[in-house]
Formats: sequence, structure tokens, C-alpha cells
Amino acid sequence: METTPIETIRHSLAHLLAMSILELDPKAKLGTGPSTDTGFFYDFEFSKEKPVSENDFKSIEKIIRKLINKKIDFTREEISETEAKKRFKDQPYKLELIKEIAKRGETISLYKTGDFVDLCEGPHVKNTGEIPADAFKLTRIAGAYWKSDESKTQLTRITGIAFESKATLEKYQWQQEEAKKRDHRKLGAELELFTFDDQVGPGLPLWLPKGTVIADELEMLAKETETRAGYLRVRTPHIAKDALYQTSGHLPYYEDSMFPPMEYEGEKYYLKAMNCPHHHKIFAASPKSYRDLPLRLAEYGTVYRHEKSGELFGLMRVRMMQMNDAHIYCTEEQFAEEFRAVNDLYLHYFKIFGIEKYLMRFSTHSIEKLGKKYVNEPELWKKTEDMVRTVLKESNIPFVEIPDEAAFYGPKIDVQVWSAIGREFTLATNQVDFAVPARFGLTYTDSEGQRQTPLCIHRAPLGTHERFIGFLIEHYAGAFPFWLSPVQIAILPIGETHEKYAEELAKTFRNESFRVEIHTDESLGKRIRETKIHKIPYTLVVGDQEIESKTASVESRDTGKIGTLSIEEILNRLRKERDNRQ
Amino acid sequence: METTPIETIRHSLAHLLAMSILELDPKAKLGTGPSTDTGFFYDFEFSKEKPVSENDFKSIEKIIRKLINKKIDFTREEISETEAKKRFKDQPYKLELIKEIAKRGETISLYKTGDFVDLCEGPHVKNTGEIPADAFKLTRIAGAYWKSDESKTQLTRITGIAFESKATLEKYQWQQEEAKKRDHRKLGAELELFTFDDQVGPGLPLWLPKGTVIADELEMLAKETETRAGYLRVRTPHIAKDALYQTSGHLPYYEDSMFPPMEYEGEKYYLKAMNCPHHHKIFAASPKSYRDLPLRLAEYGTVYRHEKSGELFGLMRVRMMQMNDAHIYCTEEQFAEEFRAVNDLYLHYFKIFGIEKYLMRFSTHSIEKLGKKYVNEPELWKKTEDMVRTVLKESNIPFVEIPDEAAFYGPKIDVQVWSAIGREFTLATNQVDFAVPARFGLTYTDSEGQRQTPLCIHRAPLGTHERFIGFLIEHYAGAFPFWLSPVQIAILPIGETHEKYAEELAKTFRNESFRVEIHTDESLGKRIRETKIHKIPYTLVVGDQEIESKTASVESRDTGKIGTLSIEEILNRLRKERDNRQ
Repeated sequence: METTPIETIRHSLAHLLAMSILELDPKAKLGTGPSTDTGFFYDFEFSKEKPVSENDFKSIEKIIRKLINKKIDFTREEISETEAKKRFKDQPYKLELIKEIAKRGETISLYKTGDFVDLCEGPHVKNTGEIPADAFKLTRIAGAYWKSDESKTQLTRITGIAFESKATLEKYQWQQEEAKKRDHRKLGAELELFTFDDQVGPGLPLWLPKGTVIADELEMLAKETETRAGYLRVRTPHIAKDALYQTSGHLPYYEDSMFPPMEYEGEKYYLKAMNCPHHHKIFAASPKSYRDLPLRLAEYGTVYRHEKSGELFGLMRVRMMQMNDAHIYCTEEQFAEEFRAVNDLYLHYFKIFGIEKYLMRFSTHSIEKLGKKYVNEPELWKKTEDMVRTVLKESNIPFVEIPDEAAFYGPKIDVQVWSAIGREFTLATNQVDFAVPARFGLTYTDSEGQRQTPLCIHRAPLGTHERFIGFLIEHYAGAFPFWLSPVQIAILPIGETHEKYAEELAKTFRNESFRVEIHTDESLGKRIRETKIHKIPYTLVVGDQEIESKTASVESRDTGKIGTLSIEEILNRLRKERDNRQ
Repeated sequence: METTPIETIRHSLAHLLAMSILELDPKAKLGTGPSTDTGFFYDFEFSKEKPVSENDFKSIEKIIRKLINKKIDFTREEISETEAKKRFKDQPYKLELIKEIAKRGETISLYKTGDFVDLCEGPHVKNTGEIPADAFKLTRIAGAYWKSDESKTQLTRITGIAFESKATLEKYQWQQEEAKKRDHRKLGAELELFTFDDQVGPGLPLWLPKGTVIADELEMLAKETETRAGYLRVRTPHIAKDALYQTSGHLPYYEDSMFPPMEYEGEKYYLKAMNCPHHHKIFAASPKSYRDLPLRLAEYGTVYRHEKSGELFGLMRVRMMQMNDAHIYCTEEQFAEEFRAVNDLYLHYFKIFGIEKYLMRFSTHSIEKLGKKYVNEPELWKKTEDMVRTVLKESNIPFVEIPDEAAFYGPKIDVQVWSAIGREFTLATNQVDFAVPARFGLTYTDSEGQRQTPLCIHRAPLGTHERFIGFLIEHYAGAFPFWLSPVQIAILPIGETHEKYAEELAKTFRNESFRVEIHTDESLGKRIRETKIHKIPYTLVVGDQEIESKTASVESRDTGKIGTLSIEEILNRLRKERDNRQ
């Protein structure tokens, strides 16, 4: 029983939901009822007299629970089209499906649970008793078009969640609640991090001063880390002629994901959707020898991509992306070492941001599809994939291997991370590229004087500012660590006579490049509450006593009251936190 | 005689040039012969038998000098069209001009010098003796279309330079020679600072790693300076819908200077040609009160502008510009103080970059054109212009006032700077804007609860990376000061046995974020020469002695051999130079 897959339990719950609805509204017509990633749903057409609403969820759940406790068997039956049409004569949607199944020449199967019969492929639990009675919940009722087709009848969809146990259900519910509180769009507005404007355009975020502080800090981190790792920085235009994207192969294959061209002086100029072609041109700008490799070119480049209006979502789906991009040009011999170093960067960043759960999805090629889906370099595929696999194992990085999902020009690694509340995000993609450098005619002279084509690693460990800051807002619930906080210190003079001292303190902290605000209006209590709402890491309250002793009364957002400290003590503490990126 | 304007001398020299040419080729036909910024030219159609070449310059100059020494009078005469046509019957180009002058109903005037007569408005010197005989030189012979019209006859233009004295002539010649050596396109390629690529497009620089170091250092300087001056940083997209530019008024009036639109989802998107509209939207993103002002929004924003292909010139005329931009929103009361602070920024930067000669061109409105060329706010014009004038005077900044050249929406200040070799560059433009904030509906609540429209100061003291780095390359002849140098230290191990020590030293310097290269191939002498060519500020030579004493033998690019110093002494020296931006 323990091992029944959760999808099977969820799908079986959909049947029990339909059974329960028919108890309440025997004339209801049934649509379909599949499992989902978190539970199940069923679509109904209710008979007019008895509309079901959210208020009925409790009683429906009770009926379902009753059906579970009855330990009813699920039994499968295969029947002819004629027989099926007879059995479902009162169910027009099922009749439509029966015709389709028959037309495809497939077997028509039924599942019976007590009196209830549903047209269904299965699989299902053997007996309703296998379903945990305390680990599901109905959550939503809403309109849904038959077959998701707006020209067809609108049915009513009842959605539920279901998990292996009460504990997992409750964890999921907590996570959903938390995710709502941590919604990056809500916190982004409250904390004044970013905004959108109709006249600028959808999916094009404007970073407000406080959000820009975070982006700037991330860039400083990237720059510092990358410089130490031997990267060189470059800057490239946001546009290029179509010729560049024909060389790279993005045109015509990737054109749908790009903004349309600007016709200019008889040429077509495109907004860049990726930085690599520009970086390849920088590689090509002067002759290279093996002594120049590995060459690591980094740029926090802004790219523009077409995303459908309906798919835009806060910072998570945007049309403008500032990407922590870099391209590493190296020899085959250097590849493993370079790839290892890229992984080390990831681990370094995960540690800084307290990302404890992560996974690399390593997509490999398929031998059968060489020359079709994949560039026909069997040895290079094998060699680089073996190297990637070895490095991943040696670095102790959790990874899964997914065959036949590589990019055309080389293996691909998608980096999945989980936020503090356990939600999964795709952070970044690394790619090994052994085809495009040749398209650009990139070469280096090896130690024997021969021209060779370098490998290229595409990597962006911090993803894009948009997606990464979106993730961080949820991850930290907007309470950014000290080094990332847009405002780090709030100084609260108790009364007007203490404002001068507050100004002096602010100056002292600003001289060391701390970000300080002085809050003077409103009562002290209200001001203290405001600093909590704005999630400012440290609040310094100053009054007569503090002025006399040249101190401040310090309260931490995260650990509460710290006490009265000298200015030097406070500075030491904050310098340390900042330097350690805490 | 001292006070004859140089333009008059130059124009008179053009006549003497024509006289001289007629001595050599009496059948030559004459075009026109005006003065230029540095001298004069005259266009000729030579009779076929006697082509003139650069080889003849010396003898022509000799004839001119002879004419000067003869002290011939210039005399003016006004004549009728008929008379003019008779006198110039053998000069078809002059006949064409005579017809045009007559058609415009203007007076036809002649200038006679001895036997030579030219159709000319003047003015001229009274006597050729006024012209300094040793302060001119013929410099160039080249084709030039009659009336600069490619469909017309190609004439031959002889160009000369002319100055007040031999010393100014020589200074100009030296400056030209220096400018050639310091040509930013030549040094930019040699020092690997930037490149252009056909597939990316003309006027779109790709910043190579070494050029990016300079841009990054400039941005760090700007960021540090602006943060200290109370600016907040923002980040905005490079595109926006046409609606934004209709609100700002850039469409349709400025459309010719913008890239053509991308038609996308039924909307037109434009590449931004300026950052202000996006910044105005950030101002508008939340309600503002007088307590929020002055609000200073800064962004090193990249803008795109249409420049004709023929007008593109290295980094000086480009289509992509990374601009040291900011917009200051303030009340009228705050204006003078804010404007003064902007001037202080300029002076701060001039000092850092050793810019000793500068001038602000202060363009004001014209009362007659209020409501036509200028927004109809007579009091605001007067008030802000008075304030600007007062601040300029008080700051002791040299300035000239140019009436009737302001922008539509407020007074304008163009900042002119002179490079180390005395060439003039337009660095940046400041504008006071009292019209556009209203177009965007920007308001703040004043202390009495009334809605008010803020003033906006547009400023960009470091101009654009492209133009400013182009200027700096000439200014420093590529020998950037220590803090700006792409490579700061070259370490030269004398032999292979010294390479390990060189690596240790490099690590020590890199740990303190100095930019270091180790040069190992080639002979020591050749390597020392290479560091000179690459203008690396410090060269450290290390051999047995240095290893034993834990020192390095230090040579400065600018001051030559310094001697053997301990590593700590070198670090102290370099830290100080970097921290002081020397």
C-alpha cells in the first residue's frame, strides 16, 4: 500500500469526487477527471437546480471520506464501442470521447467503483482503502471549457490537492500560504524594488532605487568572484545585424523568440536575445594562440526575448533579462578543469545565498539521433559527457541524467534550486558548445602551430537579475541579508533634540558606505513598526542617554534587541557582516 | 595691424592663392575661396596642360610670399550685373554666382589686388602687407565637387593653414602631429581597447577586456561620487513603446535621430535615444512629497541614436552610447543648490583627469521667441537663467553666454574641455527642464499640501563612455594613469628560474585587486620595450638578487628607473596611487 504511486491515488480521488457529486446531483454530466502535479480535478456540468459551491466542499469531502472508508474495489472492464455508447447514453461528453477512442482504434476501458462507472484508462488503486483519508482537500471551483476550447461549453471544474500523508498535505498548504506571503510581485511593490509601466511595455521591469541596490550588489559579487576566477569583462551592444544571427544559426530557427527586426539603412537590426554571438566576435577580434586559452569573457548583458503577453509573470517571465553571462573558450584538455571551476562557482554562490537544496539536470544526447537532433560528433559527445559526469560525481553535486534532451550543439545542464520554503526554481543553464565556434570560424593556434577550434562553455550561475531577485524575494521573504539590504540601518532619534546626533551617526555610517535612513516623523513605536515592515536589518534608537555615552540602542530585525553598543562596536559588527556577505 | 581678425587674413590668403595659381596657369577657372577654422582653400579647374600637384606647394607659397612683400592694396568695387558678366566672361563658375547674387537682388561686389579681380563680399585686409608671411602653409590638394554637389564638375581644392604668427602655426602643426600619434582609433586598436565588427554593425563598438576595465573604473568613480552626492541608482529597459516618446514629445520631432521602431504585438517599440522618459516613469511610480526632493536618479544608461554612416567616426560619433546620466528632480528653491552641486561634480572630475582648460557655453532663450522656439514661461526662464549665471560666477567657472540657443524647455550648458595637446572637445550637456515634467504629469505635494510640478536637471558630467574614453586616449596618449590602466603592473622574471617568484608576486598583487601580467617569452630587453609600447605604468624585473632580498627592481613608465624596493614598499606606493586615482 505504501508504494502506490501518488498519481494513482490522485486519479482515484478524481473518481471518488465524481461519485460524490452524483450523490448530490444525480443528473450532473461528467467531463474528465485526471490527476495533477499536486492533486486532481474533475469537470462537471451540473443540472440547473443544484449549483455546487465552495460551501459544499466540506460535505463533498465527507462523502469521499465515507467512500474511502467503505473500502470499495476499483475494477477494470474492456467493452465494445456499441456497449460503451449504451452505458454512457446520458453522458454526452463521455459519448464524444468514446467516438474518439474508437476512431483511433484503441481499446475502450471502464473503471467501476461500486455503482459508479467511468470511462477511463487507469491505472487506479485496487481498493479505495489504499487512499489516505486525511491527506486530500478540495481547494477550488471555477469555470473550465470542455477540452480547453473557448468555443465549447463551459463546465465547472472542482480541484483538489492530495498527498501521501496528512503531514505532506499540511506542509504543502503551509508552503502555499508562505509563497503567497512571499509573492515577489507583492513584496516587490511593498519594498519598492521594481515596477512596470504601460507606456514602457509589459514584461519590461523598471528597477527602482532599492531594487537597483540589490542588482548592483549581485553584480559586485559576480565581478569579484569572476575576476578572482580569471574572467575578463567585456561590453557589447544590445543590437546586431541579421548577418550575425545567421552566422550563429539563431536566424531563422530562433526568430520566434526574438523581437522583430528594425529595418535600418537597408539592413535588419535585431535586439540581442543572447550574448554569445557578440562574445564570439570579441574572441575573433584578434588572432589567438593556445597561450590565450582558456579565455573567459564575462558580461552582465541585457538580452530581450519574446514571451507571449499571457505568459508574462512578474520578474519570473519577462522580456528583458540582465544575465550573469560568460563564455569560456578552451581546449579539450582544459575542459574538465574549466567545467569543475564553473561548478565551484555555483557551490560558492549556493553557500552565500543559503541555498541548501539543489540539483543539476544533466541532459545528454542520443546516439540514434546524431546528425539529426544532434551535431554529428560522436566522439566529442562521448568525451564531453563523460567529463561532465565525472566532474559532477567528483564535486559531489546531486544530479540526474536525462537522455536525449541535450542542446543541438552539446550537453546541457539545468540548475534547479529550492527556496527556503521548498519551492523549486530553474536558476540557470550551462551548455557545452562544440558546434557554434566553428560556425564563427573561431580558431587558435596550438603548440604545434596547427589551427584548432576551441570548445565553448556557456554559463550563467546567477541566472538573470530578474529571475534571481524574484527567487531571492521569496527565499528571504523580502528580509534580505545585511549585505543585500537596500536600506541597512534605520536611525530613530527619540525626539527632535536627538536629530543632530542621528545625523552625525548617519554620516559616520555613510562614510563607510553603509546604506542608512533617518526616520523622524511619527511616534517612536510607529517608526519601529515601520522598520519591521520595510525589513531593515538594524534599527538604532538614540536619545539623551545614547548621546551622552556616544552609543546607540541596537535592535536586529532577525534576533531582536541587542542592547546599547558603542559606535565602534556597531561598526565592527556591521563591517564583519558585510564583508562576509551575511 | 595686430587687430586684423584672423578670418580676414585667411580669406585674403585665399585670394593670393588664386593670384598665384593664375601666374602658373593663366587659363585656370576659379571656383570659390573662403576661410576655414584653421586657414583657407580655393577651388580651381586647371587647364589640362598644366596639372598642379603637392610638389608645387613650395613654389606657390613663394609666389604668395612675394605678393605679401609687395604690399598690394585690396580695393572694393560695386558693379552692375551686366558689368560683372563682362568682366568675368572667361570664368563660368563666377558667372553662375553672379546670376544667383543678382537673382537674390543683392549687391555685386569685387575685390581687386593688383591685376587680380575676384567676385567677393569681403572683408579683406587693406594691404597684403598685413598678412604674416611666415604663418601660413599649403597642406592639401584634393578633388571637390562644385557646390559640393556630386552631379556637378569636380574641381581641385588647394587647402592651406594660416595663423596669427609663426609660433601659433608651429603649435598647430605640432598639435596635428600629436593628434595623429594619439589618434584614439589607432591607439584603441594597438592597446586592444575596442573593436568594430561588420556583422554587428557600424557605429556599434564592442569593448574588449582592456577597454572594459577603463569603462568599469569610470563607472566605479561615477558611482562612488554620485552616491556620496546623494544620488540613487536605477536601471531601465533599452526599449519602450511609442506612447512613452509621444508623452515626452520626442515623437515625432526627434524621430529622425532614433532607430526605426520594432512592430511588436500591434505596438511600436523604440530603442531609447535618451534615458529621461524612463526616469520620469520611475519618479511617477509612487506619490512624491516635498520631503522626497531633491530626488536624484542616476543610471549609466546605454542609448541608441541614428548617425549617418558617413558621419560615424571611431568612438567620437557612434550609434550606441553609454551615458553617465542622471536626472535631478527639485523644487525651484532647491535649484541653485543642486545646480551648484552639479558644477562641483564637474570640477571634481576635471581635477581627477587633469583637465586644466574648460569652458561652459551657457545657452539662454530669446524673449521675442517665447511661445515659439521656447516654452512660454518668461518668469521661469528669467529666474533659472539668473540662478545659473550666479552659480557659474560664484563657482569661478569660465563661461560664455550664448543668447537664443537654449533648448525648447530650458537653458542649456555645453561643457567644452581641452585635451593635453590643446584640442577642444564637447564633453557633455546639462539642461534645465521646466516643461517635460509637466508633460509626464509629474508632481509632488508641497508643505502646504498643494500639488506642484518639479524642475528637472539633466546632467552627464562624464558624457558617454565612448566619447570620454576617446577623449582620454588622446589626452593621455594612451598612457592612462595608474588607476585607469588596463594592465597596471608587468612582472618580468629575468630567466626561467625566476618565474616561480614572479608568480608569487603576481598573486600578492592580485590579492589586492591590482591588474598584473607576467611576461616570460622573448629577451628581457624586448620585454621591457613591449611594456613601454603597451604603456604599462610599472615594470617589476626580478632575478636572483631580488628573490634573495624579497624585492623587485621597479621601473615607472612615466619617471623611469625607481630602484630596488621591498614588496611592501611597492604595495604602499601603488595602493596610494590607486586610492588617490593617480
